Amino acid sequence: MKLHSFFRSSAAYRVRLALEIKGLAYETVAHHLRKGEQRKPEYRVLNPQGLVPTLEDAGHVLTQSLAIIEYLEEAYPQTPRLLPPDPLGRAIVRAMSLAIACDVHPLNNLRVLDYLKSAIGQSQEATDVWYRHWIGEGFAALEELVRQHSRGGRHCFGDAVTMADACLVPQMYNARRFQTDLAPYPTLVAISDSLERLPAFAAARPEAQPDAE
Amino acid sequence: MKLHSFFRSSAAYRVRLALEIKGLAYETVAHHLRKGEQRKPEYRVLNPQGLVPTLEDAGHVLTQSLAIIEYLEEAYPQTPRLLPPDPLGRAIVRAMSLAIACDVHPLNNLRVLDYLKSAIGQSQEATDVWYRHWIGEGFAALEELVRQHSRGGRHCFGDAVTMADACLVPQMYNARRFQTDLAPYPTLVAISDSLERLPAFAAARPEAQPDAE
Repeated sequence: MKLHSFFRSSAAYRVRLALEIKGLAYETVAHHLRKGEQRKPEYRVLNPQGLVPTLEDAGHVLTQSLAIIEYLEEAYPQTPRLLPPDPLGRAIVRAMSLAIACDVHPLNNLRVLDYLKSAIGQSQEATDVWYRHWIGEGFAALEELVRQHSRGGRHCFGDAVTMADACLVPQMYNARRFQTDLAPYPTLVAISDSLERLPAFAAARPEAQPDAE
Repeated sequence: MKLHSFFRSSAAYRVRLALEIKGLAYETVAHHLRKGEQRKPEYRVLNPQGLVPTLEDAGHVLTQSLAIIEYLEEAYPQTPRLLPPDPLGRAIVRAMSLAIACDVHPLNNLRVLDYLKSAIGQSQEATDVWYRHWIGEGFAALEELVRQHSRGGRHCFGDAVTMADACLVPQMYNARRFQTDLAPYPTLVAISDSLERLPAFAAARPEAQPDAE
């Protein structure tokens, strides 16, 4: 498998986590987002949105981090599961994942921050405030959901790693990078800290990637 | 089933489409977003994010439109399917859905437009430009994906209705409401026009809802 990635992309980080948890081997093809490499025509053939990640698997081209994770779950059912077995549990894990992947991360994506600065003329400070605002909105709700559904306080849902954990840790990484006040989210912080000690999470972290700076 | 909705919410519209296509009966509980009813504490018990939709089904509380649609797919397998049977087809339909649900719609959500106006001091005109910009980015990529995967030009994927169609039509409704130039997306426009003539799509449209204004 070939993962088109950028070490600091939070969506690519989710897929790296899924691959590592499932024990699936892959090679990394790095695209430097700050240099705009994801917008090159030859990459857009694979990913018309010009975003990372893209996964190539046996001639298939897959885009969108959560769609890729669901694909891995269905195409490699013999590996560790990232979704619970029952429809209700699956719905809750998906809702937690989407609360990050839809309602936090896209607002803080590089292309949006660039637009705020260039087209709307916002300062670095104003975009940092924007960044932290949407993390705060999302984490406040997620803290509540996770408190209801975590068993033991080491995973977002139940007592095993799921797709929601693969979404939480990259978002926590971003939150720390932008100096977000995490005091209101003690459950999320404790879960993320515990997860980050697992070997799969250590292997997927940005600093461990071949294109890390 | 009880759907917490707002007639003009594009995420609620997606779930209405899924329910109508699957022929599942539901009653609507309207929350007026412009009046902030979705932020009331009694609603936040059901949906900590304070967003619509929420679906109540047999004592279960479900949030996030795509998680709800996947739940309906799994909990009511005897109804018409919204995802293809094979992992690759499912991945492509999910990627199309997420390209709208993650990368277009959250940027144009009411709470984001309000933030642009109040916290960043943008004019109505500047937020309209913002709105159309992100639709343009998303639709350009989706037009390409759909051209590759539609068979017959009446559905986003293959030749049957999927979750991707339930995401496209509400986004097209928003695009028209904000006078977006749709000339660059002829495939998406043709598919949406064709879908809107189906009975399920007619029943789910904003104007047909009990809380329509």
